[in-house]
Amino acid sequence: MSNEDFAEFRIAIVGLGLMGGSLAYALRGFRDCFIIGYDIDAETIEKALKSKAVDKIALSVKEAASESDLIIFCTSPHNILEDIKNNAPYFKKGSVISDICGVKKDILALVSEISGEFAEGVDYIGIHPMAGKEVNGFCNADPAIFKNAGFILIPPEKYKYRESSLELLKDLSAYVGAGKICINSAEEHDKIIAYTSDLMHIAAAALCVDFPQNMTMAHTAGAFRDCTRIANIKADLWTDLLAENSDNIIPHLELYINNLVNFKNALALNNQEFIYSFLNTACINKKEMQKR
Amino acid sequence: MSNEDFAEFRIAIVGLGLMGGSLAYALRGFRDCFIIGYDIDAETIEKALKSKAVDKIALSVKEAASESDLIIFCTSPHNILEDIKNNAPYFKKGSVISDICGVKKDILALVSEISGEFAEGVDYIGIHPMAGKEVNGFCNADPAIFKNAGFILIPPEKYKYRESSLELLKDLSAYVGAGKICINSAEEHDKIIAYTSDLMHIAAAALCVDFPQNMTMAHTAGAFRDCTRIANIKADLWTDLLAENSDNIIPHLELYINNLVNFKNALALNNQEFIYSFLNTACINKKEMQKR
Repeated sequence: MSNEDFAEFRIAIVGLGLMGGSLAYALRGFRDCFIIGYDIDAETIEKALKSKAVDKIALSVKEAASESDLIIFCTSPHNILEDIKNNAPYFKKGSVISDICGVKKDILALVSEISGEFAEGVDYIGIHPMAGKEVNGFCNADPAIFKNAGFILIPPEKYKYRESSLELLKDLSAYVGAGKICINSAEEHDKIIAYTSDLMHIAAAALCVDFPQNMTMAHTAGAFRDCTRIANIKADLWTDLLAENSDNIIPHLELYINNLVNFKNALALNNQEFIYSFLNTACINKKEMQKR
Repeated sequence: MSNEDFAEFRIAIVGLGLMGGSLAYALRGFRDCFIIGYDIDAETIEKALKSKAVDKIALSVKEAASESDLIIFCTSPHNILEDIKNNAPYFKKGSVISDICGVKKDILALVSEISGEFAEGVDYIGIHPMAGKEVNGFCNADPAIFKNAGFILIPPEKYKYRESSLELLKDLSAYVGAGKICINSAEEHDKIIAYTSDLMHIAAAALCVDFPQNMTMAHTAGAFRDCTRIANIKADLWTDLLAENSDNIIPHLELYINNLVNFKNALALNNQEFIYSFLNTACINKKEMQKR
């Protein structure tokens, strides 16, 4: 296909924080697209225009929705739900709605519920790029975060979508540098992410809630650095993400706590056989996971 | 001081695994030393000689002890205790005994108990280089692991040692690339390390004891990579280290479990105020720790 076929292809990115900003940079040149940005922060808007991450700024989500062939929501779970609900009739005929949110169940449920309000041919397909950083904001945006990252695509199960919409998001993922691309249902996605991402963030944060007052960084090495890196967390965003996925997180968290309690009891009883077997199982599992 | 003053300075390294091997490489040239290695593994011995990491191999710990001005034990806590106990009378007159073990209380207690058996002027001072890797063995030895690492020096509290012995280990630490050098009592050291290292290893291992069978690496990002990196653990060594320091670890582990239980309850009750405050405290503490 020549570039001309896509000369009018317009992508809107709602929320130009770390993820939205990185996506804007990474999408430059994809199907010769025109990029519309939307953000509520004046400084972010100014920087996004100045750095040419976006071609124009929409003054409202409604404007972005009505003008774009693909709109990608890059805000918090709560805001994404509100924006899709409040703008249902305005999404452009034949366009694709997407989002990069880390929890999908409620978005898919909402979209399925209100899809009757959409214009003809509006599809929804979610994306979850397995990428991020422990810093925030457009000023930290970096298209390289998507290089070799897994991309999970989450199409709806309850109503039909065009194969071309899924292809569009596969192409987009590959264009920004995706490693492996997976297709999951919202339920599968949320259950797996509850372990691979949510539990990791809770474990890391909990490690930093209490600490010995006489420690210094000289008493730390790679173990401390890596296990606590993501405790440097955006607390409001993650409150939203974790609360949204609590049903899936709680069973993993219970297993984790249970394993830690068993380990603590083994330590108290000096049960070295249990300690060894626990550490050895962890080591074998870690290697097994890395083959998948 | 000219090199000649140290022309005969002999350092023995007992255990040429990842840490001992890295130390041998890093010590090359320090006070023009002659490096004696000891290991029970024939392949390791061959590689250490071939790569010139050591100048000679001792056939026993007794030989290494009796010939060296500084002997550094780089094996497991259990083996270090056995070797020091069994070779007490053989350490060279005026020499310094050291070790790089991650837990010090029992070694210091032993040394204090048997110091009467030592030859005249034998000092003990422990070192804990805050460095490591999640791979093992001489084949992974790398002198760069010590660059900018914190070095904790642990002199005895119950009997005198020469200031020059402490200076020797400070110089050695600086020579191999130490960042900040701290002096702690064994008790202080073990209490702090129970948090900065031991708890981190337990938390990471416990994250890998159970995992969802349908996950793939495409579902993971930096959070999973970093929080579980050290689950790739040397289970026998760490069983020994954790069992040795269990008294100090258990209070930290109890606090950790307690924090996770409180978080789980907040998730179950959708107490977003608690979730936010927990994550925010973790984030503030993480930044505070990094200033120390």
